[in-house]
Amino acid sequence: MKQYLFISAFFISIFSFSQTDEETIKKIYDNSLSNGKSYEWLNYLSNQIGGRLSGSLNAERAVQWTKKELEKLGLDKVWLQPVMVPKWVRGTAEYGFIETEQGKTINVNLCALGGSVATPALGVKANVIEVHSIAELETLGREKIEGKIVFFNRPMEETLINTFSAYGGCVDQRSGAKQAGEFGAVAAIVRSMNLRLDDFPHTGAMNYGDTPVKDRIPSAAISTNHAELLSSLLKLNTDLKFYFKQNCKQLKDVLSHNVIGEITGSEFPNEYIIVGGHLDSWDLGDGSHDDGAGCMQSMDVLRLLMESGIKPKRSIRAVLFMNEENGLRGGKKYAAEAKRKGENHIFALESDSGGFTPRGFSFDCSEADFNQVLNWKPLFKPYLIHYFEHGGSGADIGPLKKDNMVLAGLRPDSQRYFDYHHAANDTFDAVNKRELELGAATMTALVYLYDKYGVSPINNPSHIKD
Amino acid sequence: MKQYLFISAFFISIFSFSQTDEETIKKIYDNSLSNGKSYEWLNYLSNQIGGRLSGSLNAERAVQWTKKELEKLGLDKVWLQPVMVPKWVRGTAEYGFIETEQGKTINVNLCALGGSVATPALGVKANVIEVHSIAELETLGREKIEGKIVFFNRPMEETLINTFSAYGGCVDQRSGAKQAGEFGAVAAIVRSMNLRLDDFPHTGAMNYGDTPVKDRIPSAAISTNHAELLSSLLKLNTDLKFYFKQNCKQLKDVLSHNVIGEITGSEFPNEYIIVGGHLDSWDLGDGSHDDGAGCMQSMDVLRLLMESGIKPKRSIRAVLFMNEENGLRGGKKYAAEAKRKGENHIFALESDSGGFTPRGFSFDCSEADFNQVLNWKPLFKPYLIHYFEHGGSGADIGPLKKDNMVLAGLRPDSQRYFDYHHAANDTFDAVNKRELELGAATMTALVYLYDKYGVSPINNPSHIKD
Repeated sequence: MKQYLFISAFFISIFSFSQTDEETIKKIYDNSLSNGKSYEWLNYLSNQIGGRLSGSLNAERAVQWTKKELEKLGLDKVWLQPVMVPKWVRGTAEYGFIETEQGKTINVNLCALGGSVATPALGVKANVIEVHSIAELETLGREKIEGKIVFFNRPMEETLINTFSAYGGCVDQRSGAKQAGEFGAVAAIVRSMNLRLDDFPHTGAMNYGDTPVKDRIPSAAISTNHAELLSSLLKLNTDLKFYFKQNCKQLKDVLSHNVIGEITGSEFPNEYIIVGGHLDSWDLGDGSHDDGAGCMQSMDVLRLLMESGIKPKRSIRAVLFMNEENGLRGGKKYAAEAKRKGENHIFALESDSGGFTPRGFSFDCSEADFNQVLNWKPLFKPYLIHYFEHGGSGADIGPLKKDNMVLAGLRPDSQRYFDYHHAANDTFDAVNKRELELGAATMTALVYLYDKYGVSPINNPSHIKD
Repeated sequence: MKQYLFISAFFISIFSFSQTDEETIKKIYDNSLSNGKSYEWLNYLSNQIGGRLSGSLNAERAVQWTKKELEKLGLDKVWLQPVMVPKWVRGTAEYGFIETEQGKTINVNLCALGGSVATPALGVKANVIEVHSIAELETLGREKIEGKIVFFNRPMEETLINTFSAYGGCVDQRSGAKQAGEFGAVAAIVRSMNLRLDDFPHTGAMNYGDTPVKDRIPSAAISTNHAELLSSLLKLNTDLKFYFKQNCKQLKDVLSHNVIGEITGSEFPNEYIIVGGHLDSWDLGDGSHDDGAGCMQSMDVLRLLMESGIKPKRSIRAVLFMNEENGLRGGKKYAAEAKRKGENHIFALESDSGGFTPRGFSFDCSEADFNQVLNWKPLFKPYLIHYFEHGGSGADIGPLKKDNMVLAGLRPDSQRYFDYHHAANDTFDAVNKRELELGAATMTALVYLYDKYGVSPINNPSHIKD
């Protein structure tokens, strides 16, 4: 047995935070848990507005309602930032079945993938070829694919602890219709990105890249239970047929908006800290976890700062981005405007991983900034916030990336996320009040620290204050 | 602003674990997540057997079924350990209402507390006096209490991050009927121990201490929504009446069993490591979280050890304790038998905090043993297991406590636990497969380490092996 000998390096760290910080952070958590608004807001957004795909009437209702709620908070500024967004519509409900032999069919739960073209009006019916990766298409070649429906059936890897990694390892299949089409397939169906075996089809964006519109083949997701069933039936009968019909459509871009609320900084008004989520959602559920949760938490960050008696030195914004799901136009627009106006964004935090118990953050930043954050870690220990790691942040804030800036993502417990993601069961009842509120408090605490201390003095020496 | 200066002490630690440990633990987690049995077992226990209060037919069905399942695993020994348990029966469904004036009533969701006596056959109706603590009864005195129904309405403290602490701060009210009765109350009703406002009454054990049977007054829990309602209505009308009827009964003790499965140790067969949960549950739900989860995880610990190719040096037992909820007879019996037989228990781990994402463990042990555990902490980091603290372990294993022994409790995320605890919604659908399986793997990993390394060599120098 080989033994590892760990001798920790002589380790001296000198860091400072104040007793006030502990007290303030306690106040923030107490306030969120006993007097939070995020859950009540989410109830309204989910149950009175509902699913809000970019360009839909619901998306605009969500824009107007969140603006109104932010205005009620008595912030320094609340405004809408115009942005043109793509508008894709699902149309009538999709319909599909497996036909094992003439007249013997089993209905399948399926949904068009966002961005997909429609099937012909009477639907598409063809033999099925099951594959587990886009690369496998190459091996099979046109001969085995032409005229068929390609069935992408690589499951999410269940042994990965971080379910987002499992998602990342599968989601390329969602755009597999592009390559399948190039080999002559007539359509593509994809196993839903869901770790659980259940009956919900999960939608999500797919794209055809540079494939001309006339060459695009329709693509749909089927539930994991039906993916298992189809795979089993194919083992018995490679000659079975699959039929589906969908009449989704990509329309012209329409005007929409990011929603922004700001507390203007008292000392460094041109240093911006933003917290955000995306206000658009898929259309199947009401988008409670993805990403109503993140938006309502972000709004509550501003309220919690004020309620906790914090007067920010820097300008703090909650930004509700439009169109993360199928275009990222809101994130790009916000970054372009920030650049155009010379706004110095020092810290951006996104919550777009569901409203589950927060575990910590991942940071996209320099080593110096990361070390600064690690020094704050003890402040979070009473709240069981332990995860402080380098990693990605959030899609919407990505376009802001520059040197001397910290991007971060809230990291909630990820085990249940993909049970709901992009599916009809992403609804308000799947969100736990306390878990959501703990997330809002955790975000607020980090924003409070960045407001007070700024980013690492190594990057911004001008801001060292005693 | 007072600055804290933290200078961490020169810190050198030398500890050892092997690469094999990392690999074995990975194997354990992989196996649990891709091939675990805990969820499938829990489905059976919850949906084919159901709630299993001590002394009930279902409790005996659970005993027989778990024994059979353990036997299928090919362990070295599986047996039933007889234990006499109390048998309390709920009888017909409880019924209650608030009467604001003659003929105007609002039905209330309520349930008898475990151990309570029945109301008179026609029920009890009286004015209500609301209190927030048992101490408050003293202040009020007999004059204000006599002839009334005492309504204990102190809510769980929502700002506490650990919801078990919030529970601990409230649960004394559940036995408040004893003191209320001493002041002449005719009954006691208690706000359910639930952080959420909902419609479920939550039962749980109450006891009358030394109050003679003839002086005992009936006691029931009402839902948090109805507690809020009753409290509001009392503010408008102190003269309102509350009525309820229950015909629960304490019967004679009956024979039941702990269920035990053992892999006998190859080197130190008389050193015992046990993992367990309690097989009995309350009768309102199916006891999935409390504590079907812990039992099925404990059974799977044995299976996961074997599946991962581990041949324990010490004897490892899964113990499914009977009667944790209203007597702890199983835990006491197991400890008494262990003592009688001279079995040297070195480590006991209980899972009785729900089948949620595991966060770590709390340990009831010496400093030396605690330091040993901290050395293992890095092995758990890939699985986001971060919580290693001194604290309580589990009710069932408590009676085993002695020097040179480590008692531990699995600590899952606690935010949702009291939404379900002792209520009709503690059912299988409230358990997430991956969360349950991560718990089983986390328990197995710690058992593996204790089997391999024993407890701290400072306590047991004879077992230092190179």
